[in-house]
Amino acid sequence: MSETMLALDFGGTKLAAAVITEEAFDTGDANNALAWQCQARRELPNPPSFERDWEAAIALAHEVLAGAQPAAIGVSFGGPVDYLTGAVRRSHHVPGWEQVPLRLRLSEAFGGVPVGVDNDANAAALAEYRFGAGDYHDLAYLTVSTGVGSGLILNGMPWRGWDGMAGEVGHTVIDAAGPECLCGKRGCVERLASGLYLAQDAIAQLQQQMGSGPVPTSPLWARVQAAGGLDAATEQFSAQWLSAAADQGDEMAIALLDRSAGAIGVAIGNLANGINPERFVVGGGVAKAGDRYWHQMQAAARSTALPEVRVAIFPAALGDDAPLWGAAILARRLVTVDDGDF
Amino acid sequence: MSETMLALDFGGTKLAAAVITEEAFDTGDANNALAWQCQARRELPNPPSFERDWEAAIALAHEVLAGAQPAAIGVSFGGPVDYLTGAVRRSHHVPGWEQVPLRLRLSEAFGGVPVGVDNDANAAALAEYRFGAGDYHDLAYLTVSTGVGSGLILNGMPWRGWDGMAGEVGHTVIDAAGPECLCGKRGCVERLASGLYLAQDAIAQLQQQMGSGPVPTSPLWARVQAAGGLDAATEQFSAQWLSAAADQGDEMAIALLDRSAGAIGVAIGNLANGINPERFVVGGGVAKAGDRYWHQMQAAARSTALPEVRVAIFPAALGDDAPLWGAAILARRLVTVDDGDF
Repeated sequence: MSETMLALDFGGTKLAAAVITEEAFDTGDANNALAWQCQARRELPNPPSFERDWEAAIALAHEVLAGAQPAAIGVSFGGPVDYLTGAVRRSHHVPGWEQVPLRLRLSEAFGGVPVGVDNDANAAALAEYRFGAGDYHDLAYLTVSTGVGSGLILNGMPWRGWDGMAGEVGHTVIDAAGPECLCGKRGCVERLASGLYLAQDAIAQLQQQMGSGPVPTSPLWARVQAAGGLDAATEQFSAQWLSAAADQGDEMAIALLDRSAGAIGVAIGNLANGINPERFVVGGGVAKAGDRYWHQMQAAARSTALPEVRVAIFPAALGDDAPLWGAAILARRLVTVDDGDF
Repeated sequence: MSETMLALDFGGTKLAAAVITEEAFDTGDANNALAWQCQARRELPNPPSFERDWEAAIALAHEVLAGAQPAAIGVSFGGPVDYLTGAVRRSHHVPGWEQVPLRLRLSEAFGGVPVGVDNDANAAALAEYRFGAGDYHDLAYLTVSTGVGSGLILNGMPWRGWDGMAGEVGHTVIDAAGPECLCGKRGCVERLASGLYLAQDAIAQLQQQMGSGPVPTSPLWARVQAAGGLDAATEQFSAQWLSAAADQGDEMAIALLDRSAGAIGVAIGNLANGINPERFVVGGGVAKAGDRYWHQMQAAARSTALPEVRVAIFPAALGDDAPLWGAAILARRLVTVDDGDF
């Protein structure tokens, strides 16, 4: 009988748990095979807090396991972790995760089972490499959603760096005179490209327009008014609003999305010049803003990379579950150590 | 008897040739041991041109070999090369090197001996890793001289990238609104930091000062006048002029060197966030401008890297011969393949 593995994704919008078996790994196609090899999949609808949701997380895991004992547990976590110890450094999304020994706590909760913990961008990169868009041994994965995450696969293995912090491409500086980022620097990729900052800048520009004359009209303003005005819209604003407005010709939305695409393109071009990977894979909600976004990003990447440097960019194939499948791969690695096959 | 290896450095200011023997590799200290293990070392005083200097290069090699047949040849080349085929893509310094099959030509000239060719930054990184400042398995080497070069050692091996173009950190963009680089982009690290551009910008600023009023006075102007005026100075200008003038309090020189140090610091911080190596090693003439340069560079690197990301920067230990020693290591690798010890 095949071994049961538990995959957990402590993500930015939810906690997801799935049980999968070894057969899933024989097909190499997550979209078709993992879907049914996944014995059970459940989620909690909010970004999990350690204090508030720990018992619920364990209960969710037991629910998907349905009485089975997992041979190993793999975890994707939305924030920096110490891969060697399996301890969380902090969450990008919820306070209270500082220095939580997540690997230890999970292992204790499941009878001493081996547990692997990595950050969500590394897990997603691994999943795209193994099952998704990038079966190429040197691969840089970028995800453009609330933040900008990235994970590197070098020589077919996740590249985590000396402190396990590799892949913080979102906080590389590309515009020294650009707007200030929460990290304290100016012109980080994330500051220019992420959904959170696009929304923040859109709201600020809308407020400015409102204060400077008659009630403005534009597709974005129509959306704001439908939401019940600017205060209500601020709560609900999402990058999808921008892409919908841009499709209707909204100039502000187009400019903001162009800025994001250009910044991601420069980040890709800089990575290409620096480490020259075989392939780039780009995912995340913002990067799905449409053809214009994709073309702007590709053009910026191509003009940033030197002529001799390959720039091959492919869309992510796995969608929002990429970190969860990455967690499954981490678990599987723990029960089939030394075969060298991630 | 120990095998003889030939090392060649087709550099930016000279062609250097050296013969070394296996014993050199047993000590791990280039400064002491390689100096005397190096049986002979000669150089031609100009950047070598393929058409003009090929015969002279071969003659120089025969001269240092003094009748011995080399067991292998290692080559450091000042420009991008295809490591797999050993063909030069182009020289950074001299026209006429486009697509020259350097490995093949050298092998033919020396009876079919194995030849390894790499670019000078990779060779220097390898030398610093093996004999110099950086016996750390994950290492990023940067050299700030005429241009800005870099080489990466990951997991104890040179990281060359898919097209052999990894390490072009000099052409990563850090200031989207910065001055235009010869590569066509704005705000490349090299445009802001390299000796060539520092000299160019200094001359331009001096010309502007001269055109805008009475004859200016400053330590840099004193140097210019000693050289016989601005036209004569333009021919001779070097980054050393800037560091000497900065030591005397020259404001323009200080500002230009600060700009260079800041750009190299941001480049290091960006690399730290992206690949998180254990160590950085920085060499090259411009980086030797003094304590102020080093401190500004470190401060910029530290504030660019996220707090969790290590930034450990050490000065290069091998000086101008680093690429030549790297070439020796490439040669040695060809006669002791598979021991995994670079």
